[in-house]
Amino acid sequence: MSELIEKLLTGDKRSVARAITVIENYEDETEAIIKEIHKHTGNAHVIGITGPPGAGKSTLTDKIVKNLIAKGKKVGIIAVDPTSPYSGGSILGDRIRMQDLALEPNVFIRSMGTRGYLGGLSKATHNAVKVLDASGVDYIFIETVGVGQSEVDIVKTADTVLMVMVPGLGDDIQSIKAGVMEIGDIFVVNKADLFGAPRTATEINMMLDLNQNMKRRPPVLMATAGKNEGIEELVDELEKHREYLAETGELTERRLNNTRMEVIELIESELRKIVINHTEEEGRMKKCVEDILAKNTDIYTVRDEFLKSIRG
Amino acid sequence: MSELIEKLLTGDKRSVARAITVIENYEDETEAIIKEIHKHTGNAHVIGITGPPGAGKSTLTDKIVKNLIAKGKKVGIIAVDPTSPYSGGSILGDRIRMQDLALEPNVFIRSMGTRGYLGGLSKATHNAVKVLDASGVDYIFIETVGVGQSEVDIVKTADTVLMVMVPGLGDDIQSIKAGVMEIGDIFVVNKADLFGAPRTATEINMMLDLNQNMKRRPPVLMATAGKNEGIEELVDELEKHREYLAETGELTERRLNNTRMEVIELIESELRKIVINHTEEEGRMKKCVEDILAKNTDIYTVRDEFLKSIRG
Repeated sequence: MSELIEKLLTGDKRSVARAITVIENYEDETEAIIKEIHKHTGNAHVIGITGPPGAGKSTLTDKIVKNLIAKGKKVGIIAVDPTSPYSGGSILGDRIRMQDLALEPNVFIRSMGTRGYLGGLSKATHNAVKVLDASGVDYIFIETVGVGQSEVDIVKTADTVLMVMVPGLGDDIQSIKAGVMEIGDIFVVNKADLFGAPRTATEINMMLDLNQNMKRRPPVLMATAGKNEGIEELVDELEKHREYLAETGELTERRLNNTRMEVIELIESELRKIVINHTEEEGRMKKCVEDILAKNTDIYTVRDEFLKSIRG
Repeated sequence: MSELIEKLLTGDKRSVARAITVIENYEDETEAIIKEIHKHTGNAHVIGITGPPGAGKSTLTDKIVKNLIAKGKKVGIIAVDPTSPYSGGSILGDRIRMQDLALEPNVFIRSMGTRGYLGGLSKATHNAVKVLDASGVDYIFIETVGVGQSEVDIVKTADTVLMVMVPGLGDDIQSIKAGVMEIGDIFVVNKADLFGAPRTATEINMMLDLNQNMKRRPPVLMATAGKNEGIEELVDELEKHREYLAETGELTERRLNNTRMEVIELIESELRKIVINHTEEEGRMKKCVEDILAKNTDIYTVRDEFLKSIRG
């Protein structure tokens, strides 16, 4: 294990891949890995990319990443598809177009689907981000296929969330509403050469102007990823947002909050195990529910007795 | 409170309505009510009715209930719409047709939507069932609008689950698959006068025959609720299932299992409160997450410290 971590910290791609596989499958080892690499995390700029299907997120990610590696940066990409049963380096639909990136020495790509991750896909993704972070990449992109609740849960802990829109969403833009719009730090209308792009941008701007509670008004950009247009401006905005996060203390605030949520989830997950172990021990629960049904006691009294013995 | 419960136990409809309103809104009072009525519960036959939108569940429920009250039975109905923000006796769409039932002295009807129930709609529904049960009704119907996961969660704790199907579902019948089909104790093809009804029944029978793990093969009936056809047979099957549950010990088994789940959820819910109170006390959590970000410690070490102090 320590050899794996040593090599991972030097940026060895095979070790990164192996560490992520471990995280996907073994709970105890995950804890050991995350503990060991913790000191080496927190340096990468984590960017979440989300938006409706067909918005061209993969192509956009591809062009942004190529722009960054041309500038000598190291990049990690986690392509997340909460609806796909495949994972572990498999190729997800459109992402076949991204495969030439996988040959770049300074790019690491990993696909994650829904295949039984311990503690859920969201937790597995966040742990994979930590592994990539510790491996020394400058940027980590979490790209999702859709813009539903599970995608929001996955990308909302990123430092910067890039929301990719596309002309011709029509009334569908209304469905990408509160809760989803709120997590966007930068908006981009991709396929800006299509009819209706300026109107889409106007609609997004109007929706953003309705929200008066924002600390910072997200910019709305135009891009045509297929023609490599608007990519430089987008990379500039990502950089500007990173500076904004650092200067205002917002980065620390976001990370403190994410860490808080992570710790609470870990505690609850352990407590759940304790409850199950404790209540099932020596058929204790069986006896109690029989007593409840026989009206000798009730659910709240049983709950209180269990709570007392769990804490005692 | 004790006066409310006294009147509730005599079957007073206004007291039943008030008790359910309390359950929807106040946590401590819910506990007091459920504890007090516990000895008077477990007598009603609880029937969950679910199926795809447009299957005619409301009309079917209406006819079954009318059949039962003609036989001198007392009936409670909880109409659940997990997608509706309305609740508390409001009229939900098609259910307006059921409103003449509300005038019957031996029928109690309540609608429940998604309006911020403490602990969720499912828990609120189950507590409302207990109140109706204690009020002395013979049957309790939980009718849902759809057949999604939240509907399944709500009806699966019923003694008998009636799955309402309709001709012309076409390939959609495939989407009402594993996990949903499994909870049905009785299947009925409603609107059986429509074209394709026998084929739908055949398809359901084929799906049921594929499942070899069933203790009991659910029957598939035909009905045309709008014309009051097939209702008597359906009521007979409900009775037969009740007898089956009693004779085989399955009723006790199901109720023991439901009670077990209920107790575990109550324990977890209390532990969650303890975690939040404990970690937020004196800014303990704030200090810890700052230490994690400063690399003085890590999430797992913090989790273990909190677990120790929560249990100690």
